[in-house]
Amino acid sequence: MTFNIHSTDDNSKARTGVITTDHGEIKTPIFMPVGTIATVKSVHQRELLNDIKADIILGNTYHLYLRPETDILQKAGGLHQFMNWSKNILTDSGGYQVYSLSERRKISEDGVKFKSHIDGSMHWFSPENVMDTQRLIGADIMMAFDECTPYPCDYNYAKRSMHMTHRWLERCITRFNATDDLYGHQQHLFPIVQGSTYKDLRKESAQYIADKDLPGNAIGGLSVGEPNDEMYEMTDVVTDVLPKDKPRYLMGVGTPIDLLENIALGIDMFDCVMPTRNARNGMIFTSQGSINIKNLKWKTDFSPLDSDGTTWVDHDYSRAYVRHLFTVNELLAKQICSIHNLGFYLKLVRQAAQHIQDGDFMSWKTMMVNQMQNRL
Amino acid sequence: MTFNIHSTDDNSKARTGVITTDHGEIKTPIFMPVGTIATVKSVHQRELLNDIKADIILGNTYHLYLRPETDILQKAGGLHQFMNWSKNILTDSGGYQVYSLSERRKISEDGVKFKSHIDGSMHWFSPENVMDTQRLIGADIMMAFDECTPYPCDYNYAKRSMHMTHRWLERCITRFNATDDLYGHQQHLFPIVQGSTYKDLRKESAQYIADKDLPGNAIGGLSVGEPNDEMYEMTDVVTDVLPKDKPRYLMGVGTPIDLLENIALGIDMFDCVMPTRNARNGMIFTSQGSINIKNLKWKTDFSPLDSDGTTWVDHDYSRAYVRHLFTVNELLAKQICSIHNLGFYLKLVRQAAQHIQDGDFMSWKTMMVNQMQNRL
Ligand SMILES: [Zn+2]
Ligand SMILES: [Zn+2]
Repeated sequence: MTFNIHSTDDNSKARTGVITTDHGEIKTPIFMPVGTIATVKSVHQRELLNDIKADIILGNTYHLYLRPETDILQKAGGLHQFMNWSKNILTDSGGYQVYSLSERRKISEDGVKFKSHIDGSMHWFSPENVMDTQRLIGADIMMAFDECTPYPCDYNYAKRSMHMTHRWLERCITRFNATDDLYGHQQHLFPIVQGSTYKDLRKESAQYIADKDLPGNAIGGLSVGEPNDEMYEMTDVVTDVLPKDKPRYLMGVGTPIDLLENIALGIDMFDCVMPTRNARNGMIFTSQGSINIKNLKWKTDFSPLDSDGTTWVDHDYSRAYVRHLFTVNELLAKQICSIHNLGFYLKLVRQAAQHIQDGDFMSWKTMMVNQMQNRL
Repeated sequence: MTFNIHSTDDNSKARTGVITTDHGEIKTPIFMPVGTIATVKSVHQRELLNDIKADIILGNTYHLYLRPETDILQKAGGLHQFMNWSKNILTDSGGYQVYSLSERRKISEDGVKFKSHIDGSMHWFSPENVMDTQRLIGADIMMAFDECTPYPCDYNYAKRSMHMTHRWLERCITRFNATDDLYGHQQHLFPIVQGSTYKDLRKESAQYIADKDLPGNAIGGLSVGEPNDEMYEMTDVVTDVLPKDKPRYLMGVGTPIDLLENIALGIDMFDCVMPTRNARNGMIFTSQGSINIKNLKWKTDFSPLDSDGTTWVDHDYSRAYVRHLFTVNELLAKQICSIHNLGFYLKLVRQAAQHIQDGDFMSWKTMMVNQMQNRL
């Protein structure tokens, strides 16, 4: 993996660049659509490629491990082959999903014992076997196994947990280095900064992670319910420590506004279920603000879904039509809005890159944040 | 509307032709995907046009009348505009849906009083207002209001009902002739042959309908539970009476085998929910037989969904992948199989046309019927 920075903003920590892997170029800043169980919900791979223009998507190790199960992915020749996706894939470590099982899991120094949400069967994730699973999935970018602390989190718990995450990282690196790429393309490991909302812990964790000199670095444990200002503060603290010459990935973030604010703080990569989940509920994002397309006010609005939109659905379908589809509970409604929202997110990060290059990123961001706060 | 016959089969009543309307050419024999409530379930209009290559789709007057409601369609400039579909649309009369409400409707000579399945509100369909509604929808081809008898049906009831359908046809024609095309394209009315499974009634009805000299003729009241042989027998009787130089539409039919058998009996147009409904349940049709893609046997079958298929989904996705999507209840599963099945139906009628032209339709049909009976 290489990461080349193309331009940096004079008035913020924003930058543009290109990550190159065996599955092609990822222009940063980038948003990664979430393809939980080998599908970005209701969106065809062809649409991700040609219409949404995603350079990379995310897969969830927890879900893929349970279904279709790792051995099926192995027999298929990896997730890329299984789902017919020829660009990049990043997988999370499964940790986040396992912790949200709450009553159904037990964390120890060794790893996490958990009950499947599907059939109650018992399973075991450890730093080692999570490396093996991501190897088998064939992710271009694999994530270290970490503990993602909830919000709010007691200082002492956050500190102990962070240290365990660091010890787990050592075990991840050892296992990663002892195992091979499986499908003819190189795989890469990103470590994760933890430390809850405590500046000193975040600094310590960022320094620890930076010292491992892995090809990219991630920030976890944010966007878990803390106020936005606290999220931005933590990002700011961490990106001051993480090396400039490696991509920085803020996990599970966020709203379109969150993306722009965190790009300004030096983040290069994002993922979030929000664009697709909200789409399925009829919430769409536009540069002028968000829209609840189910609202009665769109009943006879025959204008395009988003006249500024870059995907074909924005122009092929009217607001009144999409509202009708939600009213009658038709699947096409979810399909249209998912393509729209993902197209909007990808357009937004591309626009951010352009404005960083042009040198007017911060004024553009201020204008966009202002507009996007509207509810149309 | 014009209908030009291009070729006829020497060994059957099969023929190929072209219907031309203001929304373009319909090459016959044709299958019309069912777009109940202004959407062919889970399929984008762009996919219907470019991938499935549908020349015409069907809309359901009953559903469209209730939602989005006719006045919305009128404000949109008709259904073509509302859903962004520039090729042909045929609408049924709403009769079939209204009768299936059973306890919720009352038929009289004047028309049918019925309770909405959505909110229980009372509504009224008559030959006259059903013409008005289809005018407002903007269908290229409108269907006469008829009573579709159930199977089995008492002879005397079938006879009385058929005569009422004939009287209703007179009222439909009167209203149709007294009203104008609304959106700048010509609209056309097709009458419907009834008579249950009684040959003498079917002959009488076909003669009555033929005498109206409308631009096309339909056969209703079949595919309602009768054995296939009875369906074919009725089609055979009716197509002997209906004029050769007008398109013949067999309503609500059917399986791929039903299509081929009825093409041999002189049918030019079909519609059915089967390809889309079965798709959503994981049943797909191929030239080698039907497949339950949810079956365990496809778990590690990484071959294409249908190696003979003409749509991109057939080659982009494997059987194991589509099976996985059904297992985890992902929407993409329904989307893929709907495109596949509709693509298969359209390919089948195109192939039939080619073999009619080539003069080997009946031997090809025998081979195909034989193959398609398999369950893979
Ligand atoms: Zn999120
Ligand atoms: Zn049918």
